[in-house]
Amino acid sequence: MSKNINVGIIGVSGYTGLELVKMLINHPTFKLNYVANSTGDITMDELHPSLSGICSLEVKKADVDECAATCSLVFLAVPHKTAMAFVKPFMKLGIKVVDFSADYRLTQDVYEEYYCAHTDAENLENVVYGLPEMFREEIKNASLVANPGCFPTSAILGLLPFMDRRVPNTPIIVDAKTGVSGAGKKLSDVTHFVNVNDNLFAYNPFHHRHAPEIAQKLGVSFDEVNFVPHLVPLTRGMISSIYIQTQGSFDAEELVREYYKDEPYVRISKNPVDMKNTAGTNFCDIYVKQKGNLLFVSSSIDNLLRGSSSQALANANLMMGLDENSGIPNIAYVP
Amino acid sequence: MSKNINVGIIGVSGYTGLELVKMLINHPTFKLNYVANSTGDITMDELHPSLSGICSLEVKKADVDECAATCSLVFLAVPHKTAMAFVKPFMKLGIKVVDFSADYRLTQDVYEEYYCAHTDAENLENVVYGLPEMFREEIKNASLVANPGCFPTSAILGLLPFMDRRVPNTPIIVDAKTGVSGAGKKLSDVTHFVNVNDNLFAYNPFHHRHAPEIAQKLGVSFDEVNFVPHLVPLTRGMISSIYIQTQGSFDAEELVREYYKDEPYVRISKNPVDMKNTAGTNFCDIYVKQKGNLLFVSSSIDNLLRGSSSQALANANLMMGLDENSGIPNIAYVP
Amino acid sequence: MSKNINVGIIGVSGYTGLELVKMLINHPTFKLNYVANSTGDITMDELHPSLSGICSLEVKKADVDECAATCSLVFLAVPHKTAMAFVKPFMKLGIKVVDFSADYRLTQDVYEEYYCAHTDAENLENVVYGLPEMFREEIKNASLVANPGCFPTSAILGLLPFMDRRVPNTPIIVDAKTGVSGAGKKLSDVTHFVNVNDNLFAYNPFHHRHAPEIAQKLGVSFDEVNFVPHLVPLTRGMISSIYIQTQGSFDAEELVREYYKDEPYVRISKNPVDMKNTAGTNFCDIYVKQKGNLLFVSSSIDNLLRGSSSQALANANLMMGLDENSGIPNIAYVP
Amino acid sequence: MSKNINVGIIGVSGYTGLELVKMLINHPTFKLNYVANSTGDITMDELHPSLSGICSLEVKKADVDECAATCSLVFLAVPHKTAMAFVKPFMKLGIKVVDFSADYRLTQDVYEEYYCAHTDAENLENVVYGLPEMFREEIKNASLVANPGCFPTSAILGLLPFMDRRVPNTPIIVDAKTGVSGAGKKLSDVTHFVNVNDNLFAYNPFHHRHAPEIAQKLGVSFDEVNFVPHLVPLTRGMISSIYIQTQGSFDAEELVREYYKDEPYVRISKNPVDMKNTAGTNFCDIYVKQKGNLLFVSSSIDNLLRGSSSQALANANLMMGLDENSGIPNIAYVP
Repeated sequence: MSKNINVGIIGVSGYTGLELVKMLINHPTFKLNYVANSTGDITMDELHPSLSGICSLEVKKADVDECAATCSLVFLAVPHKTAMAFVKPFMKLGIKVVDFSADYRLTQDVYEEYYCAHTDAENLENVVYGLPEMFREEIKNASLVANPGCFPTSAILGLLPFMDRRVPNTPIIVDAKTGVSGAGKKLSDVTHFVNVNDNLFAYNPFHHRHAPEIAQKLGVSFDEVNFVPHLVPLTRGMISSIYIQTQGSFDAEELVREYYKDEPYVRISKNPVDMKNTAGTNFCDIYVKQKGNLLFVSSSIDNLLRGSSSQALANANLMMGLDENSGIPNIAYVP
Repeated sequence: MSKNINVGIIGVSGYTGLELVKMLINHPTFKLNYVANSTGDITMDELHPSLSGICSLEVKKADVDECAATCSLVFLAVPHKTAMAFVKPFMKLGIKVVDFSADYRLTQDVYEEYYCAHTDAENLENVVYGLPEMFREEIKNASLVANPGCFPTSAILGLLPFMDRRVPNTPIIVDAKTGVSGAGKKLSDVTHFVNVNDNLFAYNPFHHRHAPEIAQKLGVSFDEVNFVPHLVPLTRGMISSIYIQTQGSFDAEELVREYYKDEPYVRISKNPVDMKNTAGTNFCDIYVKQKGNLLFVSSSIDNLLRGSSSQALANANLMMGLDENSGIPNIAYVP
Repeated sequence: MSKNINVGIIGVSGYTGLELVKMLINHPTFKLNYVANSTGDITMDELHPSLSGICSLEVKKADVDECAATCSLVFLAVPHKTAMAFVKPFMKLGIKVVDFSADYRLTQDVYEEYYCAHTDAENLENVVYGLPEMFREEIKNASLVANPGCFPTSAILGLLPFMDRRVPNTPIIVDAKTGVSGAGKKLSDVTHFVNVNDNLFAYNPFHHRHAPEIAQKLGVSFDEVNFVPHLVPLTRGMISSIYIQTQGSFDAEELVREYYKDEPYVRISKNPVDMKNTAGTNFCDIYVKQKGNLLFVSSSIDNLLRGSSSQALANANLMMGLDENSGIPNIAYVP
Repeated sequence: MSKNINVGIIGVSGYTGLELVKMLINHPTFKLNYVANSTGDITMDELHPSLSGICSLEVKKADVDECAATCSLVFLAVPHKTAMAFVKPFMKLGIKVVDFSADYRLTQDVYEEYYCAHTDAENLENVVYGLPEMFREEIKNASLVANPGCFPTSAILGLLPFMDRRVPNTPIIVDAKTGVSGAGKKLSDVTHFVNVNDNLFAYNPFHHRHAPEIAQKLGVSFDEVNFVPHLVPLTRGMISSIYIQTQGSFDAEELVREYYKDEPYVRISKNPVDMKNTAGTNFCDIYVKQKGNLLFVSSSIDNLLRGSSSQALANANLMMGLDENSGIPNIAYVP
């Protein structure tokens, strides 16, 4: 194993930054030689004590030029809006970027409705949406990849095979359940242990920012995607329970198996999927069940990996001409 | 407080039996003077150590005559099929019964399709379904009440106000989430801590026995009720996330507030309901959200109380001419 | 039931304030007619949605005169230092006080070493430590009661019966385990769900403020009490695992049963105690096991109730000449 | 990477068997070409669905000859007593064995007191106890290694550096906390989700079978080791909170750092250790704190890995002349 491609990460304080670091430590080709956050002046193992004895890289205060001087590709694990400000100069310097944020996932008008003003229309034109099952070839040639949101990843992978069978204009219902790590490290009443433990609740019903992302990528109107996420008392994992009305006669399991038959990171399950079999991996596990013309799809991913960091790494592998599977985790945290 | 009505419980080993005992200890009128399970030869505090110092009643091996000799009303917290065998003789002896099982909740044909042969057609004709919000007056005059299932209670209470607004023949979707106590004390892989903790999964999608119960009580066909329960890593609590297509212009929150305005144990919430505010109580908390013609209803109950034991007690109160609220818990276990 | 003694609570925003409100709603004699926090301008059910339909009392901005005008006794569920500032004027006005904070639990010198300067030496002289098993008679005549800390309550009740048997100058080891509600509502990394779930760790080993409280009440030196609390991933509950070296021959279970034989809220268990049998109650459950001259005591309480609010209520009952047991919860939250 | 040493596992149905399979899949030298359980007739991914797409090896009904024909070393992840029956013939056939059970950890007399009759005295004489920090050189030359118990691993590693400083004849107290996976897959009331969630309790206080294992390896009498394990509501992780009385003046942190300075899988922490930093790894994290002559040691491991499977793999690496670190996991499951 020769680590001969230098990569950097801006944003190593959060959960997704840490997950990426963990995978890059053992990556056969990528060498992590630049890590940064908003303050610097600390080492990786001070920031994340679990890395003690494993990684003591110096964490820098993020600086585009310093990063560009030593890296061919950079992962941006920073909040939306902050991301745009980094993407522009990196693109100018010819550095490839995988952006974890929402900044380049939506058309400008929709982005501005749900987030804030967009200040980088130029790169927005050339971005590729980093869902390999949809855009593998485009990703290979991309300079800038918008890494998908966690909910959109699980929902789109569950819906894609069936969009042709759907009755037009009937509601697509995505009742999602997510672990708490999806909310990040920021302190809030919602993530206080006492409020989450022994509890469950919907949040932002019909108003979550991931709904337009799902709609745009599936090519349907926002009105058709009805998305209600629920917070559940566990750390990592995400399941989208999807309901759509279909027409014509078909065997949903057969169809989904055929659709994903060449995909290395989608598994079709004969039994309802759970969260533990995907936790720690890049897999999306899918289960389908038909009842007359109603189709139930249950789609499970690790929200921090397939929903963020391992998908980002798959994208980076593709962008740099490597095997898509290089360094991608496939062995779950069970039990 | 004068405890002057004697009641009994057959089936005090399980969770719902225990919950009922806990409420009856402090009930102002009902005196619990007969408790039984399938073996006897133990006391309540030996069976449930949390009752040490509180209740040391002798648990008998269940015997209809012994129970009937000293009780005006009996609660049957036993499995389906076992329940029928007790109901018949109690009815003959003129003892009122609240049955926790599914034995008297469905029409005979549907019962036999989902459960087993029914051997008590006679009493099945005169049973009342014990959902006070639907059948309060009938319950007052009933000798035999079929206490509703937990999922049906949460789903029906969420759907009732909106059945008139629903577009006929469109799917009613009930994506339910339940804590593990709903599965009872029986050991199984599904309830092993290691399999539940950090996990979540659907089970019996579109094939759960509670689906026909929901359909029959709402007066729709089984085809229209699409019910998918999910197990979540917590002990008590249940939320039904309901999606229906509606017609006409109306304010769902206004409608549901009006519908339940005189109901003591239904609360309408401006924010998405959670499980902790109902845990430990008989409340059903309901939240509604409209998006065009799609309606989302989130309905939360304590699966062991409103979903079983406290609803049973409310039914017993009504059957014996007491205030429906006597001894009914309304203060949640939060935090 | 005639609620003819008016009481107030200052500090109803936190967990212990809420627990106290929940008990007072159903108290046979105490009428809760004054509730306050630091801001006011809200109602109880807005502050704690679980009280919706139960208690809509107006929460005032705390004011001593307003409270004193209508209450005979006030509970102070505010932080240390803030408590002192309230106690002084209430004492002057002849209002009885149960103080939840540490302000009056220690001698002045020790208090000032572990907390801050003490500004109410006068009342500190006349305070009674509110552990009924130690000071029941004194509490009955007290104007000011210092409600014990949660860890001291569980540790002292476990140790009291055995202090005479202990080998002098050998270490008293208290390895305690507590749920997260003990840390209060304040946001911190330590109480973020992701950091607590699937985790466990010691904190402040040998340096927790509750250690001197345990030592002073047991009449031993601080050097002899070796206290290490651990945070465990659950909401409510606390167990102290205590190890002491004893001398002479005695049967520990017999001794502890005899010691507490007249105590209504101490239960001796033949099996190791757990947290669920005490959660929701005022009970302290105790288990003992001897191995030669080493004694293991496991002492379990609900940290929010016996460790705070229900013990405070028992103290208030005693101070006002009521039955100590009035309104005290004894039925656990199991399952 | 050339997988040129064939190894087998007997006992792949349980948690530790699965953990071992997960590590061997990616091991650079060991090739897993024989897996068995007590029934056979299934594949690895049918037995453990998380391995779907990863490992579909046929699971055989355990057969010594079949295994010996193709493997140089075999891991026995079977219960005690069953293990002995396999060890004997494997030893005769010259196959190296790492035994996960207790069968070869104790002297015969003590084994028979705590477990059952021992039927393989011959091999018991030549076994090596597989704690590399104690017996690394002996393990390299061993044919049979007794893999340590989980509690003994965490307790012994915490105690070893300090045994010279301990006051003779004073009690060694080990107050341990373990996740539920340590109890295995077998169904029991103790592992039912409802009994574990929101709960904590001691079990087998002073009578756990791991106590004599700790004593024998440390060279002290059974009377001196006072071991009380507690079950905590989480899946994997184990912390031993150790208290011993020491003599002389020394800096415990300095001493433990020096003691383990060349050990790749022991980390000394400046802050109290937690369970998440070791979960998923072979690390033992140790924290020490002195208070006068009392020493507190907190020692954290993953009970399934360092407490079983990854330690077994390290032993196998040593026995086969490989780098001890080959294929050993060092990156934690955090967050």
